[in-house]
Amino acid sequence: MTFALLREDPGTRARLGRIETDHGAIETPVFMPVGTLGSVKAVQQRELIADVRAEVILGNTYHLFLRPGTNVLEEAGGLHRFMGWPRPILTDSGGYQVFSLAERRKLTEEGAEFQSHLDGSHHLFTPESVVDVQRSIGSDIMMVLDECPAADVDERYARASHALTLRWAERGRKRFLATEPRYGHAQAQFGIVQGVRFPALRRASARALVDIGFEGYAIGGLSVGEAAPVMYEMVEVVTEILPKDRPRYLMGVGTPANLLEAIERGVDMFDCVMPTRNGRNGTIFTTEGVINIKNARWKTHFEPVDPGLDAYASQAYTKAYLRHLIIAGEILGLQIASLQNLAFYTWLMREARAALREDRFASWKAETLPRVSRRL
Amino acid sequence: MTFALLREDPGTRARLGRIETDHGAIETPVFMPVGTLGSVKAVQQRELIADVRAEVILGNTYHLFLRPGTNVLEEAGGLHRFMGWPRPILTDSGGYQVFSLAERRKLTEEGAEFQSHLDGSHHLFTPESVVDVQRSIGSDIMMVLDECPAADVDERYARASHALTLRWAERGRKRFLATEPRYGHAQAQFGIVQGVRFPALRRASARALVDIGFEGYAIGGLSVGEAAPVMYEMVEVVTEILPKDRPRYLMGVGTPANLLEAIERGVDMFDCVMPTRNGRNGTIFTTEGVINIKNARWKTHFEPVDPGLDAYASQAYTKAYLRHLIIAGEILGLQIASLQNLAFYTWLMREARAALREDRFASWKAETLPRVSRRL
Repeated sequence: MTFALLREDPGTRARLGRIETDHGAIETPVFMPVGTLGSVKAVQQRELIADVRAEVILGNTYHLFLRPGTNVLEEAGGLHRFMGWPRPILTDSGGYQVFSLAERRKLTEEGAEFQSHLDGSHHLFTPESVVDVQRSIGSDIMMVLDECPAADVDERYARASHALTLRWAERGRKRFLATEPRYGHAQAQFGIVQGVRFPALRRASARALVDIGFEGYAIGGLSVGEAAPVMYEMVEVVTEILPKDRPRYLMGVGTPANLLEAIERGVDMFDCVMPTRNGRNGTIFTTEGVINIKNARWKTHFEPVDPGLDAYASQAYTKAYLRHLIIAGEILGLQIASLQNLAFYTWLMREARAALREDRFASWKAETLPRVSRRL
Repeated sequence: MTFALLREDPGTRARLGRIETDHGAIETPVFMPVGTLGSVKAVQQRELIADVRAEVILGNTYHLFLRPGTNVLEEAGGLHRFMGWPRPILTDSGGYQVFSLAERRKLTEEGAEFQSHLDGSHHLFTPESVVDVQRSIGSDIMMVLDECPAADVDERYARASHALTLRWAERGRKRFLATEPRYGHAQAQFGIVQGVRFPALRRASARALVDIGFEGYAIGGLSVGEAAPVMYEMVEVVTEILPKDRPRYLMGVGTPANLLEAIERGVDMFDCVMPTRNGRNGTIFTTEGVINIKNARWKTHFEPVDPGLDAYASQAYTKAYLRHLIIAGEILGLQIASLQNLAFYTWLMREARAALREDRFASWKAETLPRVSRRL
């Protein structure tokens, strides 16, 4: 994996870049649809390419480790082949899900012991083992194991957690450098900056990770309950330190506003379940604003789901039809909403890149954000 | 709507035909995917056209009457426009759902009173009102209101029910002839032969409906629990009487074997939820046989879902991947299974038509049925 910094915005810290992988290029800033179990929920692979125009998707190591398991993935020749996805894949380390989903987890210096949320089976994730699992998955970009503390822990806890995460990062990097990809394509590894809401810890975390040296750097432990200004401050603190020639990835974020604010502060990559999850609940992001499709005002609104997008689902169906499907619990409603919302997110990133290419990011953002964020 | 009988099989009563509607032609024998609420579950409209190659789909009057309701459908300009489906639509009368789904239903000479299964609201379907509702839906082919008795009722009940269904058919036909389509395209009306498992009643029902005169004739009240030979006998009894120059539609049937046996006995049209419903539960129909995709033998079967079909879902994904998705409860699994099974059903009908074109239906059926019916 290589990263080329193509352009820096003159007025902000926003950047235009390009990541090259053996599965193709990723233009940044980029939004990565989440494909937890090897499937972006309710979206066909060809729709991800033709309609969403996704350049990279995310897979969850915790989920894939449990199902279908590394044996199946290895026999398939990796996740790309297993799911029929020819473009880049990024995988998280599984740490976040161990802390949010698994049962009876126990944190030790060695790693994270946990019981599967599916069948109660016992497992241990270590900084080394999650590298191995991600070698079996064959993701183009893998993440180190980290602890992701809650937003409200005190500084003492945050300091200890951050120190552990750094020791794990060193061990994970060592394992990464001592092992080889399995399927003939290269893999890269990102470190994860932690430090909760404490600028000094965030700075120390970023500096230490840069000293270890990774192909890219993620900012973790945000969008977990803290106020948005805190998130933005932490992002600023960290992107000041991270090297310009490596991509920066803000994990699990967020709303369209979150994305644009973070781009302005120097972030290149995002993932979030919001477009698909909220879509399935009837929240539709459009180029004209945010819609609660269950609202009665859309009952006889026979205009396209989003006249501003050229994706199939945006044009082929009306808001009235989508409302009917979502209210009736029809699967096609979930499909249309997911496709529309993902197409909106990737459109927003394409527009951001176009603005960056023309040195007009700030004015574009000032014009776009109120429009796409308003409630229709 | 017109029907052209193109060819009769020399060895059996199977027929090749073509229905022409204002929304295009339907080659028969045909399988019609069920789009209960204005959506074939888990399948996009463009997939119905490009992958399933559906020539006509079904809508359910009972469901569409409750949601989105006739007001919305009228404002949309009919169901075709509402759901973005350019090809023919057939709607049932709602009778079957009133008897199987609605609560506290009450049958009178006037019609069927019922309470919605959704909100308990009170409604009355009469032979006249279901014509009006289907005018609002704008289906190319509508059905008369009928009573659909259980398979095990005695002859006395069956006789009374059949007589009521005939009186309703007369009233429905009268209303149909006294009203006009709403949206500029023509609508046709089919009568429904009832009579449970009693040949004499079936014959009387068929003769009486032919006397009233419809654009086509359905055979109802079968595949409701009776043995398959009984179903086939009833079909034979009825198709002997029905006029050759009108299409015959066996309602709610069935397995691949049911379809081929009924085609052999002179049926032209079918609908069934089996391909989509069973698909969502992991039963996959393929050109090589029937699969329970949850079975462990498919865990590392990295061949296409169905090498014998050219539909996207049949080729782009493997059985191992589909198994993983279905077991994990991923929506994409429902999408792939539905697409595959519908593509299989329409493929089976295309193959049947090709055989009929070449006067080799019986030998084609003898060769095909064991293959597609076996459990893999």
